[in-house]
Amino acid sequence: MEYQVGADSICLPKPVYILKTASVVGKLEGEGPIGDCFDMICEDDRFGSDSWEKAESEMQKEALTLALGKAKLQGADLRYIFAGDLLGQTIASSFGLIGFQRPLFGLYGACSTIGEALSLGAMTVAAGYANLVGAVTSSHFAGAERQFRFPIEYANQRPLCSTWTVTGSGAYILGTEKSHVKITEVTTGKIMDMGVRDAQNMGAAMAPAAAALITNHLRDFGRKQDDYDAIITGDLGKVGKEILLELCDIEGHPIDDKHYDCGMEIFNHLDQHTCAGGSGCGCSATTMASYYMPRIAAGKWKRVLFVPTGALLSPVSFNEGENVPGIAHGVVMEYEE
Amino acid sequence: MEYQVGADSICLPKPVYILKTASVVGKLEGEGPIGDCFDMICEDDRFGSDSWEKAESEMQKEALTLALGKAKLQGADLRYIFAGDLLGQTIASSFGLIGFQRPLFGLYGACSTIGEALSLGAMTVAAGYANLVGAVTSSHFAGAERQFRFPIEYANQRPLCSTWTVTGSGAYILGTEKSHVKITEVTTGKIMDMGVRDAQNMGAAMAPAAAALITNHLRDFGRKQDDYDAIITGDLGKVGKEILLELCDIEGHPIDDKHYDCGMEIFNHLDQHTCAGGSGCGCSATTMASYYMPRIAAGKWKRVLFVPTGALLSPVSFNEGENVPGIAHGVVMEYEE
Repeated sequence: MEYQVGADSICLPKPVYILKTASVVGKLEGEGPIGDCFDMICEDDRFGSDSWEKAESEMQKEALTLALGKAKLQGADLRYIFAGDLLGQTIASSFGLIGFQRPLFGLYGACSTIGEALSLGAMTVAAGYANLVGAVTSSHFAGAERQFRFPIEYANQRPLCSTWTVTGSGAYILGTEKSHVKITEVTTGKIMDMGVRDAQNMGAAMAPAAAALITNHLRDFGRKQDDYDAIITGDLGKVGKEILLELCDIEGHPIDDKHYDCGMEIFNHLDQHTCAGGSGCGCSATTMASYYMPRIAAGKWKRVLFVPTGALLSPVSFNEGENVPGIAHGVVMEYEE
Repeated sequence: MEYQVGADSICLPKPVYILKTASVVGKLEGEGPIGDCFDMICEDDRFGSDSWEKAESEMQKEALTLALGKAKLQGADLRYIFAGDLLGQTIASSFGLIGFQRPLFGLYGACSTIGEALSLGAMTVAAGYANLVGAVTSSHFAGAERQFRFPIEYANQRPLCSTWTVTGSGAYILGTEKSHVKITEVTTGKIMDMGVRDAQNMGAAMAPAAAALITNHLRDFGRKQDDYDAIITGDLGKVGKEILLELCDIEGHPIDDKHYDCGMEIFNHLDQHTCAGGSGCGCSATTMASYYMPRIAAGKWKRVLFVPTGALLSPVSFNEGENVPGIAHGVVMEYEE
C-alpha cells in the first residue's frame, strides 16, 4: 500500500544501488560515436563461435563476468539473475548464463527487457529477498535479422524508418551496498497496440507504449519534465522519437527539453548507414550502462527516468497478419553523494 | 537477509493467498481422467479463431476472465499480471492479455513459467508492491508441435518417451485477502544441462532441473519428504518421473512416497495415445489449479511443494546442435483454516 504510487508505479521501500555495470559490443557499435565508452569491443561479430546465436550468448557471459569483476564479486555472490533477449525461447540468456549456476528469472519484454530486469531486480533487493542480483540482456544484429526479417545474405534494402539491431550486451549488478547511482522508483508498462504492421518500423510500433509509460509515470508522481535531468527511451530512433514527443505533447506532458534516446546515440546513422538508429535489447542496456550512467554517477544528472522500449514483434504473429504491439518499462535512477 | 533461506530459497515476509484460479482446456484434455475438474472445455481447439496461436491467446484471456469473475474482481483491480507461454516472443500472452491493459511482466521459463509467475507474483504481493496480481500461462498442442518439432499435418510417428503438449491455460489471482491456500516459500531454479539432445524426450531434459530444485529446497529448509503432503512436478511424464526419483534418491533426498506429476494425471496415456504424458506451460498451470489445489483448499493436504518444470528447447538452438537444458521453479502452498 504504502509503496504503491498512482496506478502503475511503486516507490521502493529503500533505494537499490547499481554497484557496477559492463557493456560488450560488436565492431560497428565500437566504431560509432560512443564507441570509446564500452568495456569490450569485439572485432569479430561471431565472438569466436560458429553462430550468431552463440555469439550473443558469449556477449552475455562476458558482460556479466566483467561487471562482476569490476565489483570484485563472483557469480556465486549473486542471489538471482534477471535476464532475457530477443530470440525465441530467450536462448541467448539460457546458454550464456548457464555457467553461472544462479537462480534465474527468464524475462521477455522485447527490447524493453533491461527495464523489466532492472525493475524486478530492484524490487527483489528492496524487499530484502536478495542482497545482490544481476540484470543482463543482449541482442545481435545478424541473429535478429534472421529471426525477425530476412537473413542478411539476402542483402535486402532497408527503408529509412528501419532501425539497426545493436550487437551488444549490458550487465548490471544491483545491491544494498551504497554507490553513486540508485534505483528509487519503478513504473511498469502495459501492452499498447496502435495498429502498426510494418516489421521494419520499430520506432512507430514502440512510441505509443513509451508515451503511455512516461505520461503515466509523470501523472503517478505528479511531476513534469523539469523534475528530471533526462528522460531516456531505449531505441525509438529518429522516427519513433518524433512520434513520442508529439504523443506526450498531446497528453499534456511535454518532454521535449529532457528527452534522449539510446538508439540515436549509439550510431552515427548517416555515416554508418543505420537508418533511423539503433534498436534491440542490447541498445538501451549498453548505452545506459556505458554512456549515460557515468553522468549520473558523476552527479551531473540528479534524477533520470530510464524507459527501455520494446516492440512485441514475432515472425509467427507477423506472418499471420497481426499488428506489432509495444511495451515499455521505466525505472528512476538518482544520484547519491 | 531475514527472508533469505539457504542458497536458493526465500520465506515470504507474509503469506500470499491464492484467491481464485481458473482453467480452460481443449477437447482431448476435457476427455481425459480429470476432465470434469476444468472450468471450461472447448470442443474446437481453434477456439473460434483462425490459427492455433490466436486460439492460445483466447484461452489466456478466458482463463484470466474466469478467475477474475470467480473472485468478483475486474481486470482493473489487478496491479500487475505475470504471464508467459512457449511461443517465440511469448505472443500468446501479448495478444491474449492486451485487452486487460494492466502493467505486465512477460516471463519465459518454458513449461516452468507458471512456477516463475507464481514466485514473482507472490514476492511482489508479500513485499507490499501490490494487493492483487494475476499469474497466467498457456500452451497449445498444435502451436507447440509446429514451432518445436513438425507441423501436425506431417503425421510423424511419436516415440513412447515423447510428451503431449497440453492445450490449456491456467490463471491464478494472488492477493493479501485471506483464502484457504497460501504461498509461503519460494525456491528458484538454475539452468541444468545433462546433455539431452532429443527434442521429443522432454521428461529426460527436465528431470535433472526438477531434482536439483527439490533437493535444494529440502536442503535449504532442512526438511524431508515427510514434511510435505505432496511434491508435485509439472510435466515430467513417465520417463522423467523415473529419472527424477532416481536422482533425488542419489542425492539423499528420496521423494518416492510424496511425488505426483501433473503430466501423468491430465491424460490417460494408454487410451488417449499421449505417450509419456502431458507437458507444456498449460499442463501444470491447469492441473494444479483445478485438480490438486482443491485438495489443499479442503484441508486434505496441509503443505505442498509445487515444482513446474521447463525444457529450454528452441528450434534455433536445437537445429544448431545444442543440448536441451532444463529449469524448474518451486513454490510452497499451504492450507490455512
